[in-house]
Amino acid sequence: MKNTNIRISLPAVCFVWQIAMIVLFGVFIRYDEESDVRKWIEFKVSHNITSDIENDFYFRYPSFQDVHVMIFVGFGFLMTFLKRYSFGGVGFNFLIASFGVQWALLMQGWFHALDPDTGKISIGVESLINADFCVASSLIAYGALLGKVSPVQLMVVTLFGVTLFAVEEYIILSLLHCRDAGGSMVIHAFGGYYGLAISWVLYRPNLNQSKRLSGSTYHSDVFAMIGTLFLWMFWPSFNSAITDHGSGQHRAAINTYIALASSVLTTVAISSMSDKRGKLDMVHIQNATLAGGVAMGTAAEFMITPYGSLIVGFCCGIISTFGYLFPMMEKYLKLQDTCGIHNLHAVPGMLGGFIGAIVAAAATEEVYGREGLIETFDFEGDFASRTVLTQGGFQAAGTCVSIAFGVVGGVVVGLILRLPIWGDPSDDNCYDDEAYWEVPEEEESIPPVLEYNNHMTRKHPDM
Amino acid sequence: MKNTNIRISLPAVCFVWQIAMIVLFGVFIRYDEESDVRKWIEFKVSHNITSDIENDFYFRYPSFQDVHVMIFVGFGFLMTFLKRYSFGGVGFNFLIASFGVQWALLMQGWFHALDPDTGKISIGVESLINADFCVASSLIAYGALLGKVSPVQLMVVTLFGVTLFAVEEYIILSLLHCRDAGGSMVIHAFGGYYGLAISWVLYRPNLNQSKRLSGSTYHSDVFAMIGTLFLWMFWPSFNSAITDHGSGQHRAAINTYIALASSVLTTVAISSMSDKRGKLDMVHIQNATLAGGVAMGTAAEFMITPYGSLIVGFCCGIISTFGYLFPMMEKYLKLQDTCGIHNLHAVPGMLGGFIGAIVAAAATEEVYGREGLIETFDFEGDFASRTVLTQGGFQAAGTCVSIAFGVVGGVVVGLILRLPIWGDPSDDNCYDDEAYWEVPEEEESIPPVLEYNNHMTRKHPDM
Amino acid sequence: MKNTNIRISLPAVCFVWQIAMIVLFGVFIRYDEESDVRKWIEFKVSHNITSDIENDFYFRYPSFQDVHVMIFVGFGFLMTFLKRYSFGGVGFNFLIASFGVQWALLMQGWFHALDPDTGKISIGVESLINADFCVASSLIAYGALLGKVSPVQLMVVTLFGVTLFAVEEYIILSLLHCRDAGGSMVIHAFGGYYGLAISWVLYRPNLNQSKRLSGSTYHSDVFAMIGTLFLWMFWPSFNSAITDHGSGQHRAAINTYIALASSVLTTVAISSMSDKRGKLDMVHIQNATLAGGVAMGTAAEFMITPYGSLIVGFCCGIISTFGYLFPMMEKYLKLQDTCGIHNLHAVPGMLGGFIGAIVAAAATEEVYGREGLIETFDFEGDFASRTVLTQGGFQAAGTCVSIAFGVVGGVVVGLILRLPIWGDPSDDNCYDDEAYWEVPEEEESIPPVLEYNNHMTRKHPDM
Repeated sequence: MKNTNIRISLPAVCFVWQIAMIVLFGVFIRYDEESDVRKWIEFKVSHNITSDIENDFYFRYPSFQDVHVMIFVGFGFLMTFLKRYSFGGVGFNFLIASFGVQWALLMQGWFHALDPDTGKISIGVESLINADFCVASSLIAYGALLGKVSPVQLMVVTLFGVTLFAVEEYIILSLLHCRDAGGSMVIHAFGGYYGLAISWVLYRPNLNQSKRLSGSTYHSDVFAMIGTLFLWMFWPSFNSAITDHGSGQHRAAINTYIALASSVLTTVAISSMSDKRGKLDMVHIQNATLAGGVAMGTAAEFMITPYGSLIVGFCCGIISTFGYLFPMMEKYLKLQDTCGIHNLHAVPGMLGGFIGAIVAAAATEEVYGREGLIETFDFEGDFASRTVLTQGGFQAAGTCVSIAFGVVGGVVVGLILRLPIWGDPSDDNCYDDEAYWEVPEEEESIPPVLEYNNHMTRKHPDM
Repeated sequence: MKNTNIRISLPAVCFVWQIAMIVLFGVFIRYDEESDVRKWIEFKVSHNITSDIENDFYFRYPSFQDVHVMIFVGFGFLMTFLKRYSFGGVGFNFLIASFGVQWALLMQGWFHALDPDTGKISIGVESLINADFCVASSLIAYGALLGKVSPVQLMVVTLFGVTLFAVEEYIILSLLHCRDAGGSMVIHAFGGYYGLAISWVLYRPNLNQSKRLSGSTYHSDVFAMIGTLFLWMFWPSFNSAITDHGSGQHRAAINTYIALASSVLTTVAISSMSDKRGKLDMVHIQNATLAGGVAMGTAAEFMITPYGSLIVGFCCGIISTFGYLFPMMEKYLKLQDTCGIHNLHAVPGMLGGFIGAIVAAAATEEVYGREGLIETFDFEGDFASRTVLTQGGFQAAGTCVSIAFGVVGGVVVGLILRLPIWGDPSDDNCYDDEAYWEVPEEEESIPPVLEYNNHMTRKHPDM
Repeated sequence: MKNTNIRISLPAVCFVWQIAMIVLFGVFIRYDEESDVRKWIEFKVSHNITSDIENDFYFRYPSFQDVHVMIFVGFGFLMTFLKRYSFGGVGFNFLIASFGVQWALLMQGWFHALDPDTGKISIGVESLINADFCVASSLIAYGALLGKVSPVQLMVVTLFGVTLFAVEEYIILSLLHCRDAGGSMVIHAFGGYYGLAISWVLYRPNLNQSKRLSGSTYHSDVFAMIGTLFLWMFWPSFNSAITDHGSGQHRAAINTYIALASSVLTTVAISSMSDKRGKLDMVHIQNATLAGGVAMGTAAEFMITPYGSLIVGFCCGIISTFGYLFPMMEKYLKLQDTCGIHNLHAVPGMLGGFIGAIVAAAATEEVYGREGLIETFDFEGDFASRTVLTQGGFQAAGTCVSIAFGVVGGVVVGLILRLPIWGDPSDDNCYDDEAYWEVPEEEESIPPVLEYNNHMTRKHPDM
């Protein structure tokens, strides 16, 4: 059995990196003009704003909190489904997300919000949303690795994941000038392929030694439904959180709501069809129902139309459930994907990127209005002359960039994680909270035995 | 044992109905002027609006998300209390709500938001709230049927439930011009009696064959408290979600908050009084504490006064708990009501309708102001000359309409559900997830036995 | 064994106090100018307001709902961690919070919102937030008493807790003119020491007779994580809910978000370091991760800077975890603190008070701007001439006042609770839901035994 003692490495990583965060925040991070008391007073005067309600806080904070719940409760509880890895599922998710958001504020700040004059990064509520988004990609990657890695490895996954995210996001959003409000490309496709590539490098041929622990129990499946439902319900907030004020946020929420509803029905249909008695499988319900939200990440803010959203949800529910039914990856690629992120994030995210490309390319002035086209696709400044067709091409290119970053980055990070210093579990010790947590004794297993003894004694006094 | 194989029927229903939704959405549903990018830009110009914050999204989206949580987590987890029907409770709730909201957007759209010129339905955030509201009535009905019907039957219940809802809502709100922002009448009274009538028609004389599964376990009761609390906490949002901007939403939230607090105390009091050692019953705490929110569904937006709200909560907590203590329905009416929706929705909803009628009839210009009376009761257009007394009468009439729709509609739907084609479970197979779900083997039952064997071996080597 | 029959006392307390609430609400409580339909229409005219979005409801309602979730789900589920006291944890929390918010509306109203002309208290959404805040201090106190007191005693704890809160809050916020938006002082330090003092007076020397029930089980720990995460995620809303509109709310949310992230890493680090194999302890993760939010309760609205927030979270995560590792209180003070509120609320709250004092004293016109200083510290009216240094001194004094109120009030209430009339459990009956709840039979313990019998029969037919 491998040594899973992380008494030195985990505290060291937490302390050193947290201290680094403090130093870097001290050097770089400042309040922006809407969260700094002096600057906001000046901003109101200079922009002729009469009411505090115009502060971006009131446009975005409710959505931010929904996204925040998705990150910590949504992802966290979705990963409690394993019978003996619920602590690790929700607990390590909590740890790496808490580190990741700090690092994301810095990384995204350097790329998007660095004032060249002062050398400072300004943060506001939109930065917090973006930090949550950024860390989501690493949490997706965790889904492929669930139960097979140590928390120290997860911190490394997050450190590099956030870094890679910031770079690919900069390329896709700033250089290629793509739109990707809900992150089909930058979050889901990237995060999915990043996790899959890591898991591929970390392939464990003898993982079936932990088979006894790789399933769920009745109540762990109910816990996982908490995660599923909070993800599902708040996905409209996820896809609308950073879209344009006004109709942009409004439309993104509607489109996502509709697509998700559609996904549920096709997921149930395929799940039922695939069992000889028509029984539903909790794995499908917990995961594939969310595929519509992933796939609407790019197009939600566009004028995709309500029925277009329904079609996206319809198809992605089917595709995602089929992915769970036929886990090709493990069979042909020697790739172990604990939560099935290939089916929930990688493929729907990629599809979402291409759907966005098509919807963008099909945009017309008749539908959007001239001003609406400019507002939606940000055809301003250097990009004032871009056509929607070109935009569609760039959107498709962006999707490819995100996948490439995920795969290449994941392979590199996977190789780093193969160093024998991280305290990862042995093959027969996977999916087991005992490795990294003090687990309470199960009192429930004691009464029956005692009861039995009494029972035996009463029944067979002659024994 | 009956055949519960739904491998054909469930996928067929899901696919066909979902495709129908896509077609109907394609023909009818469009973004409204606040979610369409072009129309919103034009709307701002034509209405002289200078800030995007005036988009209805910012008035209603936070409340919408709270309502959304109530529908999926609130109703869903409230129904996980059965020891072996938690998957069905939360999972089928998820399925039928996802179908129901789509159908509701269409049905409510045809009645309330169809543009006669274009033949199109415009949807925005308020439509989403209304769709959630509409489906709530079918979820309430599910409460009476929990564990006794197949998912295909539930889809039928929802199809007809939403249809009936849209019609009765049109009659009550548009023709009778009632006010019912939180739906005491249109949601709770209708949904409650609809479910009860269906359950009455589907009476199972030998249901006690499933008695072993009709109770809760310790942890399933804790899961159900998640549902209870999210319903309880977000009920102020439910009752204020579609009320008038400004003081209307503000007051509805306050009134509901106060009434709910009061319900909790009287529920606890009656629950404790009814046990010979004063012990509390989780069934009461999970359900009757919500009665104040149901009963404030109509009056919450009126000037009922804070102490009026307290009195409503006080009385309804008592009445609802008594309902759970003395289940007359089953005894005298041969009606099996799994979750006790009679006590939580039907009766408090009906009372809420009449409370609304009384409060409306007692409204005065002194309290509301002239303009306030018009705003609150919408005394405009055809109804400009209506008095508050008349309004009270119509409110009472509306309550009766909702009950009549529930009872008659429920009987008809119940008869349809008695056709032997729906894959419903036999009497000794009710309340059992095994019928429709792949349920994980309980590993927890294995260790004790193994342990026992070792133990025995060690203790009695001579055996 | 003591008599835990509360069949008379609990209903009596609930009924009498609830009726008293109705009478007092009838005499005193009215809608304020933003929730009363007539007054809001007049207010808009008199204040030249053109849009309903200026109603305080839209500034504060999303934060209110987050706080509401913290009170009922956050505190409630955090206290479900005990293996056989989950009903009591979440259920009694529900009961006393529901009573407490009503009493708080009255008590806080008399001190802060009583119109001297009319003798009426005006309530709006901010009153609801304040009522939730007020009751939080009693829920914190419950944490120290969990499992050792009867619900009747908890009602008494809440009655006095809310009363004492209103008085100390009046002294600290109004007389000393302190700022304490997130309540490090008035909520956490007060509530913490109040609960500790009560627990000290109620010391049970033979509590180890209940030792079998004082731990957690695997799933009860997962339930408790629901509480932890909702507290953690919504703490930014808690600390920003009643701060100044605009940059005040914005900044408070950012600071709290950052501090909490930092707490998680240092909690994990210390927890891992303290185990010989580096294993994490769920007790630490469930509690100490929240310390950063507690400690930012006063300073969150100030210009503490993002890295200042990180440092606060860093230190408090460490201090709080150490508190759980070395429970000095029980050892040296004979004080039993079930949930460890000393480490999570009392100490971080006190530190938060002093941090607030230091940050206030260090405020400069350069950073805040002249107008910003006045706005942030409310240097108006009688306090127009106060300097930041003086303000810092008063903030420190306020912290001491809150602690003094907690300790003295707690001792007095503890003595009242020692009267032998409250139905509290005997030492060997603590932490047991059986005392006050009808607990479902555990069907899970039956199958193994049956299975065993069959098994034995099959295996040893000759027995």
